[in-house]
Amino acid sequence: MDATTAGRPGPGSTNPGTPQSRTVSELSEFSLIDQVTRDLPSAPAVSVGPGDDAAVHLVNGSAVTSTDLLVEGVHFRTEWSTAEQVGRKAVAANVADLEAMGATPVAMVVALGMPADTPLAWLREFSTGVREEAARAGITIVGGDTTRARDITVCVTVTGETQGRQPVLRNGARPGQVVAVRGRLGWAAAGLAVLGRGFRSPRAAVDAQRVPQVPYGAGRKAAEAGASAMLDVSDGLLADLGHVAEASQVVIDLDTARLPVDDPVRAVAAATGKDPLELVLGGGEDHALAACFDPGQVPEGWLELGRIRECAPGEAPTVLVDSQQWAGPRGWDHFTS
Amino acid sequence: MDATTAGRPGPGSTNPGTPQSRTVSELSEFSLIDQVTRDLPSAPAVSVGPGDDAAVHLVNGSAVTSTDLLVEGVHFRTEWSTAEQVGRKAVAANVADLEAMGATPVAMVVALGMPADTPLAWLREFSTGVREEAARAGITIVGGDTTRARDITVCVTVTGETQGRQPVLRNGARPGQVVAVRGRLGWAAAGLAVLGRGFRSPRAAVDAQRVPQVPYGAGRKAAEAGASAMLDVSDGLLADLGHVAEASQVVIDLDTARLPVDDPVRAVAAATGKDPLELVLGGGEDHALAACFDPGQVPEGWLELGRIRECAPGEAPTVLVDSQQWAGPRGWDHFTS
Repeated sequence: MDATTAGRPGPGSTNPGTPQSRTVSELSEFSLIDQVTRDLPSAPAVSVGPGDDAAVHLVNGSAVTSTDLLVEGVHFRTEWSTAEQVGRKAVAANVADLEAMGATPVAMVVALGMPADTPLAWLREFSTGVREEAARAGITIVGGDTTRARDITVCVTVTGETQGRQPVLRNGARPGQVVAVRGRLGWAAAGLAVLGRGFRSPRAAVDAQRVPQVPYGAGRKAAEAGASAMLDVSDGLLADLGHVAEASQVVIDLDTARLPVDDPVRAVAAATGKDPLELVLGGGEDHALAACFDPGQVPEGWLELGRIRECAPGEAPTVLVDSQQWAGPRGWDHFTS
Repeated sequence: MDATTAGRPGPGSTNPGTPQSRTVSELSEFSLIDQVTRDLPSAPAVSVGPGDDAAVHLVNGSAVTSTDLLVEGVHFRTEWSTAEQVGRKAVAANVADLEAMGATPVAMVVALGMPADTPLAWLREFSTGVREEAARAGITIVGGDTTRARDITVCVTVTGETQGRQPVLRNGARPGQVVAVRGRLGWAAAGLAVLGRGFRSPRAAVDAQRVPQVPYGAGRKAAEAGASAMLDVSDGLLADLGHVAEASQVVIDLDTARLPVDDPVRAVAAATGKDPLELVLGGGEDHALAACFDPGQVPEGWLELGRIRECAPGEAPTVLVDSQQWAGPRGWDHFTS
């Protein structure tokens, strides 16, 4: 029930004549939920899916839970991203948090707020994106909520399971270990730099900003290979590894010679006059996994970036670049940036 | 990382001089999360709380999950409700879904979107409300997310556990059973009717609109007492029982002589010229529990409201009032209302 709009006339669709112009205002909330949840694939672990007060599913080991709120105009723009891309991004960004714990994804709920004049076609494409990315990530959609909102707002909450493994936290980095990464660095930030200037190429960078390529399954494998600390790079490599350094009370020293500067990042840096390392070290939203391993234990497909050492007497935990403090931006913050 | 606002100047606080006027724009996202999660009580089942990529907790039996998105201007107004009330309502409305499954609440994550000029005091009071209601509901806050948004937006996702009980669904109503309710009916709708006219009394009704009084623990006890179908009344008794009738393929016949018309509901109906039964039958947001029991099995504290019978040949599943179709409103819908 809407607490604050009782008695107001409902907003009509702007142009009800054609199917292309149909909006969510024409459907009841239950029909809307049906649009999103119809014919959803289920999974053996799920005994109650969408349609009841809550979903019911099994968890093998402990439950691992994370939530992310994405807001139009803050995390995405409808003129930059298709509805399908928004749906995929919402799922990918959140499942990356489960990967970063070494957990296996199990179940997901999606809450969606949107204006009454949102085209039904947008909703359908969004649902397609959510479903496709969920299938890629190996997670089952078990429920959700829809409501009216001024801006399109997506809250995805994911639950994974430990399956008997220890969750991999941020505080397990040990001196003598190496830090390694699996996934892209700087691609999404390069895409954002391009989009912000009104361009749409290089396409690989722009697409990376629209939908992160999360290395699904790599987190679990890293946990099995002995990763002692892990997180996903959502705010920037330096900012995020800073949390590992802080939580583990160590110094992480990155080696620029080992940092990957991929072609789209290099191209955007050249075109915009940026230092490509700024994108690689400070760019977020790619949701690569970064983890600490004992030397020689780094799994295939991971890239070793540096080493971990003790804090010297009086030295605060930090992340260094070639043994020096990095002068450029370290990452991004939602409120102060 | 904000995808769409990089390079824009950050919004400043409107009046940074005094503590009263401090806003969330002064704090980094991590300090903000700290404001919400600092000194949170934990629970034995929770092994990893706020601060890592995801939370980790035990689940006894199957996991039961529900999510709710509350948006300023749709579900609450900051001029009608204090921040503490908004926080309490967000928790209560969502835990009611776990109660309605007969589950025991375990863990909760809270995602909060807000404008950069939101006063820090609002955030602190909201956190207080979330914590207080979580304590009342017996659920542990294990994590969350904060981001910028134009409207204050709260997404609460709760996880409960079945503890070996069968979850109580909507499709278990059987002919010959009785339907009963535990909690308030029509109070929140009465409060909304008053607030919408610019009044603030009767206080009991207005407070009911601001914070629902969910009968915590009653859902689990109803499941133990043999409830075969259950839900919480969020959209209106007729609308919600309609889901039970539909899912169970039965007719539910309510007896007006048994319907509770409590004093605040009667007072508001008299003052506004409404039929009090309209509030009782069509009003939502009180989150009472409604359930079906075999005769003689209705637990103490529950109020029997009517009976369940088979659909006659050619009769569709429905909810009747004194064996007749009810002509008034049956509930509320977010998009078409």
